[in-house]
Amino acid sequence: MKSLLIKCIFGLLLLVSTAFAADLLPSWNDTAPKKAIVAFVEEVTKPGSRGFVPVEERIATFDNDGTLWAEQPMYFQQAFLLDRVKALAPQHPEWKNKQPFKAALAGDLKVVSAGGEQAWFELDIATHSGNTTDEFAQSVKDWSATAKHPLTGRLYTKMAYQPMLELLAYLRANGFKTFIVSGGDVDFMRPWTEKVYGVPPEQVIGSSIKTKFELRNGMPVLVLLSEINFIDDNAGKPIGINQYIGRRPIASFGNSDGDLQMMQWTAAGSGARFCLFVHHTDAEREWAYDRKSVDGHFDKALDEALAKGWTVVSMKDDWKTIYAGDKK
Amino acid sequence: MKSLLIKCIFGLLLLVSTAFAADLLPSWNDTAPKKAIVAFVEEVTKPGSRGFVPVEERIATFDNDGTLWAEQPMYFQQAFLLDRVKALAPQHPEWKNKQPFKAALAGDLKVVSAGGEQAWFELDIATHSGNTTDEFAQSVKDWSATAKHPLTGRLYTKMAYQPMLELLAYLRANGFKTFIVSGGDVDFMRPWTEKVYGVPPEQVIGSSIKTKFELRNGMPVLVLLSEINFIDDNAGKPIGINQYIGRRPIASFGNSDGDLQMMQWTAAGSGARFCLFVHHTDAEREWAYDRKSVDGHFDKALDEALAKGWTVVSMKDDWKTIYAGDKK
Repeated sequence: MKSLLIKCIFGLLLLVSTAFAADLLPSWNDTAPKKAIVAFVEEVTKPGSRGFVPVEERIATFDNDGTLWAEQPMYFQQAFLLDRVKALAPQHPEWKNKQPFKAALAGDLKVVSAGGEQAWFELDIATHSGNTTDEFAQSVKDWSATAKHPLTGRLYTKMAYQPMLELLAYLRANGFKTFIVSGGDVDFMRPWTEKVYGVPPEQVIGSSIKTKFELRNGMPVLVLLSEINFIDDNAGKPIGINQYIGRRPIASFGNSDGDLQMMQWTAAGSGARFCLFVHHTDAEREWAYDRKSVDGHFDKALDEALAKGWTVVSMKDDWKTIYAGDKK
Repeated sequence: MKSLLIKCIFGLLLLVSTAFAADLLPSWNDTAPKKAIVAFVEEVTKPGSRGFVPVEERIATFDNDGTLWAEQPMYFQQAFLLDRVKALAPQHPEWKNKQPFKAALAGDLKVVSAGGEQAWFELDIATHSGNTTDEFAQSVKDWSATAKHPLTGRLYTKMAYQPMLELLAYLRANGFKTFIVSGGDVDFMRPWTEKVYGVPPEQVIGSSIKTKFELRNGMPVLVLLSEINFIDDNAGKPIGINQYIGRRPIASFGNSDGDLQMMQWTAAGSGARFCLFVHHTDAEREWAYDRKSVDGHFDKALDEALAKGWTVVSMKDDWKTIYAGDKK
């Protein structure tokens, strides 16, 4: 009796969502990418179809920087780090004359970045190791609530791409579990991903540094150390997906070479598969860095997407809106 | 309109589940642990109550061996490993005269275990490194479909504790997300946890070995290496919980010292908290190893549970049934 009632209710819900499906991607133009997305979702969700995928296997993985939100003129996590260095500088007079801190304090992105990943890692460690995970999360929450992008004046969290927010919601309305799989630091993303993307912390995979469990005055804490735990980029993405999710996604979304192996891993599974590459082509509303990624590499992923017939989104042509609140 | 309809349906569902709640723990005696569980769940789910917890924060973490299924006379993963060594022995004639393989082939648990974790790790690596993750998962699926416990004659997967299966389902019916947090190998658990416990792979946290991404004839695979990635035991449990889930559980369930830090971490959060210790006291229907854990350590966790007033389940006194199908 109970089971029958529940079945009826879910049947009803399904009808309702199908009826409203047409409205779920309003910021997408009616071009090929939107059609490909809808065709894929209808194929995998229609019972009896050749490509039908049971709900529990509907795993979709999204890169973050440049795929779900912007990444110019620098990764937003880098902006957070520069702000942290400035905030903590009064307690570290020695930073004034020491690189990469000196350049960070001057906001000189070029000089910091000339030091490569090592320089960014040094800023990260200097500002955060010894913090508890709770303290770190609080510093991210405080920053994300107020920090604004220097060029658009928007809160960073308002620089999520509206079409991708709709896509996340559309997939979830069709039984998908949506995961973020980012090269960025997982501790930097989790404090705000649920609010901004509707993706809960336990569905965010990223790079991380090691932590240590200890009792401080009898209270257990996790303390951030100064050692890398995992780099979730390039081949690290499928490795991280296997480690955290333990099943292969049926759909993946990315915008750079760092996402290529994730997309290869997704595409190589059996049954219906979907890979989508976000191509930055809009110089007016966003940035047209085209085949160059934010850290200077050319995009092998775009070539493979074109060669394999994956869906390529031209932000200029396929998106009606970039950010929420833009005119359509 | 749509939103109102959905709210009505969820309201209806809530009424239905409340009406049936009384039936959801039939294998528990009406003793203190069952009462404590129900009181906690009612407190955190009742809107307006002092201890109310929003659905997305209802995270419950369960140890596996000795908490969700039996662990005598050895961890079942060890039984799997011994069976793998036997199956692969014809391709490894050298194993006949080399420890720990010789003892494994003779089924001599004592001699293998005398070599400590190192010996078990050696068996693990020898039988699995070089396998792809898909191949490994298949070997676990094959084994778990047929392998039987030497003393009870049950399939290992039928040695899950019926009261804990009911508890998992009861928590989920009340909006909880249930996770396994085990010292065992995550790749050994994920192929069957969804079927046995209703816990999907992405909610299983465990120990793991490193993998490598490579293209084999153009097809991407993940290959198991011979290096430990993460040990999810003792202090590793809260570290793993932070790494995989990124929020603190409000309820934890364990049965040994390896679970103590997970329970400390859970208990130390603010708001309503619940920790439950499964005490092995039933010599007739299960095993009464009491204060000794399966690998010989005494239980600090039991002392802390008693000192802090956590819920302690005596399997003999508090469980009507141990395994599904037992007479009640």
